[in-house]
Amino acid sequence: MNHSHTDSALPALRFTKMQGLGNDFVVFDGIRQRVDLPPERIRAIADRHFGIGCDQILLVEAAASPDCDFRYRIFNADGGEVAQCGNGARCFAVFVRRAGLTGKDIITVETRAGRLILHHRGNGDITVNMGVPQLVPADVPFRADEESPEYLLSAGKHTLRIAAVGMGNPHAVLRVASAAEAQVATLGPQIETHPAFPERCNVGFMEIRDRNHIQLRVWERGAGETLACGSNACAAVVAGIRWDELDHAVAVALPGGTLEIEWAGPGHSVMMTGPAQVVFDGVWPLPAKIQHIEEGS
Amino acid sequence: MNHSHTDSALPALRFTKMQGLGNDFVVFDGIRQRVDLPPERIRAIADRHFGIGCDQILLVEAAASPDCDFRYRIFNADGGEVAQCGNGARCFAVFVRRAGLTGKDIITVETRAGRLILHHRGNGDITVNMGVPQLVPADVPFRADEESPEYLLSAGKHTLRIAAVGMGNPHAVLRVASAAEAQVATLGPQIETHPAFPERCNVGFMEIRDRNHIQLRVWERGAGETLACGSNACAAVVAGIRWDELDHAVAVALPGGTLEIEWAGPGHSVMMTGPAQVVFDGVWPLPAKIQHIEEGS
Repeated sequence: MNHSHTDSALPALRFTKMQGLGNDFVVFDGIRQRVDLPPERIRAIADRHFGIGCDQILLVEAAASPDCDFRYRIFNADGGEVAQCGNGARCFAVFVRRAGLTGKDIITVETRAGRLILHHRGNGDITVNMGVPQLVPADVPFRADEESPEYLLSAGKHTLRIAAVGMGNPHAVLRVASAAEAQVATLGPQIETHPAFPERCNVGFMEIRDRNHIQLRVWERGAGETLACGSNACAAVVAGIRWDELDHAVAVALPGGTLEIEWAGPGHSVMMTGPAQVVFDGVWPLPAKIQHIEEGS
Repeated sequence: MNHSHTDSALPALRFTKMQGLGNDFVVFDGIRQRVDLPPERIRAIADRHFGIGCDQILLVEAAASPDCDFRYRIFNADGGEVAQCGNGARCFAVFVRRAGLTGKDIITVETRAGRLILHHRGNGDITVNMGVPQLVPADVPFRADEESPEYLLSAGKHTLRIAAVGMGNPHAVLRVASAAEAQVATLGPQIETHPAFPERCNVGFMEIRDRNHIQLRVWERGAGETLACGSNACAAVVAGIRWDELDHAVAVALPGGTLEIEWAGPGHSVMMTGPAQVVFDGVWPLPAKIQHIEEGS
């Protein structure tokens, strides 16, 4: 059994392993090297036992539009392409500067979810303009007759008060007395698959510590509980501001680390600031010459 | 939050990521570089989201005894040191040849579990002499009045027929009609923690296809179900031979791949043959100079 050899027909690629709040990525420079990523190669790379191991793969490409700096694509570990990932966007911003692909502090990127603006802060953190939240139910999408900061949702024997917020993907947010004791594993999948969310949703369990600090655990659509979900952190702060329980700048403590979220109110973009780290560099798959040394004598 | 920076006071280390049947390892050459592995560093390296990610860390050192080639140490992801790992031993054998630390086909190694002999086969596979199985109950250790190829064990409402075999660590083996449908997640922890195994045990669920082929799933002590457990594969074949249901050379299909196990009978060593793969090379943590480029300008 040799998973890595499924790849041997394709040329070796330089990669960088990165993480943002524990959400981890294999990043490829698709400008200086040709990167072919058929789904079986993505699955081999993302495998945590046989491959490099990661939540998602990020691919940096040249922009199609002259007023963008790059194009940025995101692949899930199962091989499918997705539109949006806030933690990945911060890693992308650190990657292109470290690789010398740009010297800019403000980087404009084409993604499947539209144009993304990334801002290098002086302290190593990156701010991502996450766009204007969708509050109209049909845009989330969420089934409700009219827009409201709060909806009542029946889930099993519970009736839950939730906010429904779109951040390019659908989010439910509910307030809990204690994030540590929240019923994430049981309520999460019930709300994710609730018929009121026709495209399912990510579910945030928010403990409000004070008007500028929340503790958040997230059940991610199709993935279960994760260390950090940047777009749900944005949705939670939008919900709390609309409930008048939060101020306009909030520190969101997630299991993987802390994000700073700012939102001026309806019609404004949500700004997300947080770290991104290079973990190590490598080559995939192992070049044949080195394999020869391994097997030779 | 920056897990990798907890490491910054220690010098950077070259590492190689390897795997054997999906059991994966970060391997350090402790002969050509000084390797300090305090438990917090082991946990940072083994973390699959913030670090390199692995089941275990292997450390190659110079032998203390003149008739051994190397000393070989194994650390679990939680920082603790363990005695034995068959999949790790094959990776170790490939590592020392690839690194040019030896040109020998047969390598003698000091481990916490005693002396280990590793044999490079021509086809890239490695044979590990896994030692003589312990069949006397007190040596497994297992609580029984006298030695038998089979014991009856009460677990909940079940009475199970099991073998109890020591391979440097304790193993229970039971025969199932279908490995795919075996109750690994429920029976595994019941047998692991059964009072008849005072040091707990690894539990193998063996489907016998014919006298030379078995399918095996393993519940590992302290780890849950894994892709492959080399020592349990040995224990299962020893059990099946003692029951006269297997011949002396058996292919053991595990979820992570296949091992060949040979055993001539009581008093003889069990020989385990299988693959080991290099996945990639790297440096941990990222050298400060590269971090400066990342954060600079």
